[in-house]
Amino acid sequence: MRAIVYRGAGGIDVVDLAEVATPVAGPDQVLVRVRASGLNRADVIQRRGGYPAPAGWPADIPGLEYAGEVAAVGPGVSGVEVGARVMGLVGGGAQAEYLVTHRRELIPIPAGIDFEQAAAIPEAFLTAYDALVTRGRTRDGERVLVHAVGSGVSTAAVQLARWLGATVAGTSRTRSKLDRVAALGVSETIDTSSGGFAHRLSRPVDVILDFFGGGSLNENLQALGPKGRLVILGTLQGGVAEKVDVARILRGRLEVIGTVMRSRPHDERVPLVEEFIARVLPELAAGRMAPVMGAVFPMTELAAAHAAMEANEVFGKIVLRW
Amino acid sequence: MRAIVYRGAGGIDVVDLAEVATPVAGPDQVLVRVRASGLNRADVIQRRGGYPAPAGWPADIPGLEYAGEVAAVGPGVSGVEVGARVMGLVGGGAQAEYLVTHRRELIPIPAGIDFEQAAAIPEAFLTAYDALVTRGRTRDGERVLVHAVGSGVSTAAVQLARWLGATVAGTSRTRSKLDRVAALGVSETIDTSSGGFAHRLSRPVDVILDFFGGGSLNENLQALGPKGRLVILGTLQGGVAEKVDVARILRGRLEVIGTVMRSRPHDERVPLVEEFIARVLPELAAGRMAPVMGAVFPMTELAAAHAAMEANEVFGKIVLRW
Repeated sequence: MRAIVYRGAGGIDVVDLAEVATPVAGPDQVLVRVRASGLNRADVIQRRGGYPAPAGWPADIPGLEYAGEVAAVGPGVSGVEVGARVMGLVGGGAQAEYLVTHRRELIPIPAGIDFEQAAAIPEAFLTAYDALVTRGRTRDGERVLVHAVGSGVSTAAVQLARWLGATVAGTSRTRSKLDRVAALGVSETIDTSSGGFAHRLSRPVDVILDFFGGGSLNENLQALGPKGRLVILGTLQGGVAEKVDVARILRGRLEVIGTVMRSRPHDERVPLVEEFIARVLPELAAGRMAPVMGAVFPMTELAAAHAAMEANEVFGKIVLRW
Repeated sequence: MRAIVYRGAGGIDVVDLAEVATPVAGPDQVLVRVRASGLNRADVIQRRGGYPAPAGWPADIPGLEYAGEVAAVGPGVSGVEVGARVMGLVGGGAQAEYLVTHRRELIPIPAGIDFEQAAAIPEAFLTAYDALVTRGRTRDGERVLVHAVGSGVSTAAVQLARWLGATVAGTSRTRSKLDRVAALGVSETIDTSSGGFAHRLSRPVDVILDFFGGGSLNENLQALGPKGRLVILGTLQGGVAEKVDVARILRGRLEVIGTVMRSRPHDERVPLVEEFIARVLPELAAGRMAPVMGAVFPMTELAAAHAAMEANEVFGKIVLRW
């Protein structure tokens, strides 16, 4: 099969399209013919050498999510039909023509959603659901702040937060992205190209989804109201925070919650997938939520897709298709 | 009535015993004749000017917990008998001969527990219960690290952690205190008079109860295993943490949780008290848990009690009695 392969770490020149061995489905596994795969910030960071694949996943083939068809099932797998349209998260290896995954991590693609749209769903919606619901415990009537609000995860988070009954504020350094999120339900936008956000919020928030990490930790703490939860999903502005106001964490009874999706073991992925299928998939199937499609590139033009992501110019998900 | 009064902020000389007006129970309130009151670190910090009483509580009379008898009930209060033995938390004013509190914040004192013992229960056990159960979500089979393990809150936390099915490691700078906590169920002790703790733990922990704040934040993060929760109850080693390893919070999917008891509104105190009465009070009544009594001072010798707390030499609670 063909697959994207990272030949070492560095710039876009380490990306190659190569012929590699097609994987074989083992017990409880399913072989998926990949039709499309989302591109994630993590793929770019991995290309630069900063985010190796967890154990048990392809080390040199990137790709954390896919949409495709079941091509074959492994020994002992029942209830999964060859040809079924499926999507899901993997720890790596999705930017290939085939991948294997555990049958219990498959998510059926609802009718009416095509492969490209489906490939934009798993990472964005599962990550945002987990961050807002499982970790952030967002409740009806609360107020959520979503940073970098034009990203795939963020545009999913906005829809999920509204579905939970929360109101949403969003930040971006790109004015045109802020202009577009109002349609998703963001009621307050802050353009951070010209400064900070905490003092410009109309009032404190209950939950923050943050991708910046160290560089914005103190300002995030300032933005939280009593019992607020800061869910950190990335460290794009550094892995170390200087002079953290711990007294504020105490006084406000705040929580700083770190989360990553990729390294989770199978035993944790399964209940999340099951909860997602039960609660969120019906919303997607009915069209009450939808992935925000930013750009679709042929897999053979992965370099251009990486460049688009690194330029921060795309609103919504970047998807790769075979 | 007589009451301890702080005349300004500073050393032990600001403490005075004065004649003040006896409070009057309003609607839904109860007047309690205080027989004993626990001394807490917060009382010492407040004396130094660092921890003012929250709104609605006496600003100059210290004391966060009491044991005594119902002396009178306010308008509309039923189901509370004059003479009933009660204990509880207040936002201030417990180091006085009388106090008023809401009827729903009263905790009955079980038979067999005297006033001095009872005065050692509310702050230590409610704080530790809330930190371990409500905030820290400690589960059967987990591993808990309790800092300053000889304190009132810590000795309660050790018993509660064991009751939850957790194993307990403890730190102290005082060897003799570490020698005594084994009897409470601490299975691993670390003497921090000669250095750090994280690298000396036999293995990572799931939950940490911390009173040090900024000064120990990074080392606490190092001590946590995957999905670990650091519950911070104090900032005795500073309110600011330098160079916090946010990337570790992410990778480990850790949580940093701040908590304070004193400033909580009535609406939050009531469900905590109700849960405590249902779950923990039976353990205390049956003698399966007990407050660790460190020293009892007459209220008139409060200066000596403050000095004993500031010397960090007492193992367990310091209690004041009229």
